[in-house]
Amino acid sequence: MTEKTGSPQARTILQQCLNARLQVKPADDQSEPEWVEIDRGMVVYICFFKGATEDIVPKMVNTLLNLELCETDSGKHVSVLDLPGSVLVVPQATLGGKAKGKRMQYHKNIEKIEGLKLYSSFVSVCEKELAMSSKSSEAGTIVKHGTYGNRQVLTLDTNGPYTHLMEF
Amino acid sequence: MTEKTGSPQARTILQQCLNARLQVKPADDQSEPEWVEIDRGMVVYICFFKGATEDIVPKMVNTLLNLELCETDSGKHVSVLDLPGSVLVVPQATLGGKAKGKRMQYHKNIEKIEGLKLYSSFVSVCEKELAMSSKSSEAGTIVKHGTYGNRQVLTLDTNGPYTHLMEF
Repeated sequence: MTEKTGSPQARTILQQCLNARLQVKPADDQSEPEWVEIDRGMVVYICFFKGATEDIVPKMVNTLLNLELCETDSGKHVSVLDLPGSVLVVPQATLGGKAKGKRMQYHKNIEKIEGLKLYSSFVSVCEKELAMSSKSSEAGTIVKHGTYGNRQVLTLDTNGPYTHLMEF
Repeated sequence: MTEKTGSPQARTILQQCLNARLQVKPADDQSEPEWVEIDRGMVVYICFFKGATEDIVPKMVNTLLNLELCETDSGKHVSVLDLPGSVLVVPQATLGGKAKGKRMQYHKNIEKIEGLKLYSSFVSVCEKELAMSSKSSEAGTIVKHGTYGNRQVLTLDTNGPYTHLMEF
């Protein structure tokens, strides 16, 4: 990992969870809200900046899934693949915010269509990497994700969020 | 707010919550675990870096409590003082982490004794600012906080975490 120079292409916040539940469809007249859920694993909040390109995605996923961002019950630090744990990906455009006076501005955020492409690609590469890990597959870990561009109604239960920031 | 140059003195992550519950004393043979809890408001995860000094604290608190980081029910963006909402401060040294290979390193984090001083001061200034806001006082909003240097067992319930990063 080299020292970053210039503006990042993406910002992620990582939190450990025992359980995380994310609404992917709000309630309407006809139906109850729909949720996705993971048990033990990692929540990835993600935001892409202007200038981010597809080639950053595999590198991001590889880094995030292999970094020792999780704690075992005995307090050892391991990757989410080695835990093994599930992954919940939460699109979070607010992470690109910058304060101007009392307001937050999001001028550096990627355009929505481009962001959706990168987000979908990120989720898809995560799914492939988990599927390729025999430890993850045997444990039945999963990747779940929120719907890009919508409100992310989230409930999080942790044994210590162990929050990290990673930029790419 | 001017463009930041050089290394930050502190890093914060801000999330909205409908309810947040933080363990401040684990269970032991004699007693149940103890928790602090807020309802609607803002969770502030905070980490100080080496070189951080006391004079940054009032500026940080003033910025964070007055920035429009919260959403009203009608979707308007307001500060936590204007919401008005409560504040949960969570010490989170992991936020100072930097990847080296697969490991996270925390070489830039402030020493524990210095960090505890700044953290305690941050909480105390938050309490004063909320108490001084008539809107907050009338609504009975509160400041709660975790115990520095310990595991932060956290449960979070949101209507969208609306996650922001602010460095100082």
